[in-house]
Amino acid sequence: MRLDSAGFTLTLPDWIGDELAGVPDRLPDPVDRMRLVHRLADRNWREGDGGPFAALVAETATGRIVSVGVNVVLASGISSGHAEVMALGTAQKAVGGWDLGGVGLPDHELVVNWRPCVQCYGATMWSGVRTMIVAGSGPEIETITTFDEGPMRDDWSAQFESRGIHVVDGVLRDEALAVFTAYRAAVDSAAALVYNARAASSAPNNSGDPE
Amino acid sequence: MRLDSAGFTLTLPDWIGDELAGVPDRLPDPVDRMRLVHRLADRNWREGDGGPFAALVAETATGRIVSVGVNVVLASGISSGHAEVMALGTAQKAVGGWDLGGVGLPDHELVVNWRPCVQCYGATMWSGVRTMIVAGSGPEIETITTFDEGPMRDDWSAQFESRGIHVVDGVLRDEALAVFTAYRAAVDSAAALVYNARAASSAPNNSGDPE
Repeated sequence: MRLDSAGFTLTLPDWIGDELAGVPDRLPDPVDRMRLVHRLADRNWREGDGGPFAALVAETATGRIVSVGVNVVLASGISSGHAEVMALGTAQKAVGGWDLGGVGLPDHELVVNWRPCVQCYGATMWSGVRTMIVAGSGPEIETITTFDEGPMRDDWSAQFESRGIHVVDGVLRDEALAVFTAYRAAVDSAAALVYNARAASSAPNNSGDPE
Repeated sequence: MRLDSAGFTLTLPDWIGDELAGVPDRLPDPVDRMRLVHRLADRNWREGDGGPFAALVAETATGRIVSVGVNVVLASGISSGHAEVMALGTAQKAVGGWDLGGVGLPDHELVVNWRPCVQCYGATMWSGVRTMIVAGSGPEIETITTFDEGPMRDDWSAQFESRGIHVVDGVLRDEALAVFTAYRAAVDSAAALVYNARAASSAPNNSGDPE
């Protein structure tokens, strides 16, 4: 046999460059880093690339932005192309290796506009980041957006901490919910592409699709 | 600011083509599909591309092989480049969209040489496959290989089933353990690159790195 495909490429949308043009290389305040994430998340669903989710990797000590990510599932046709996977993968390209916690590197953090889905929970765990900053972690994301985030353990945060990954929760939480609410309103009015297999597909046993 | 990297590419190793050259397009018996996965997993660590893990996506009804994947974390420098992510992503490229369970497509299955780590558990859940076939699911994988598979819920299998993904466990289980044992023996004798951040890195709070 011969393979139809021997690989795939995940690329950030072109508009990211415009959105970052006026942003300084360093955002020393974590709140400013989250504000940028919210801006990218809000534009992402409006552009039609994927769900209302964004992330970035920064050097914790300096606030230097190493990478950003948005959900590109629709744009790429690859279901693993979530915001966290994009931010972590492009950060690893930038530093030249798979371990963002490797010897000689500054401490890295992942900033995301909500607690990750179960896939990206694992992706974060294996990336080498030392800190994860989220805007929130409650069920609101599923209630508002209808995305399935998958079966997480109740001790998800302690499991991170036990692996040396510090969790910061609640940075610009209301602003995150505002993005999700705007997305949902657009979905309900059919102005946004419904990116949620469980709701949109006629296939009865297809799963929902998360950030 | 400007990004250092605007994307990344995950590519299967060149030797995959040789390994598949004599394999028929269809393997109607699931045991034969798993046998191929074990063969790829065993060669993968020997080639130095990543851990001893492989996967494939097949059409369940016919056994047609749609894609294969191996762990390419070392080869790619991208920590999400696990076998399941590779097999699912290249299958999605082959069918032309992110939902392998989409309307009009035949039912797809993912075949893996052990229960996935927490990242790939989620990646499988959002991929649209209807069946997951694993060689085994117990703690042996962590005991033998020392890879951390991450915090999974005890009801991981029921969570799949509740989303319409059928789980088949125990296909060529002993053969899976033989691959892991050979890998571990090579690691212990320093013949294989130790791909496990927890064990290999001097950074005290770096996580382990799974399949």
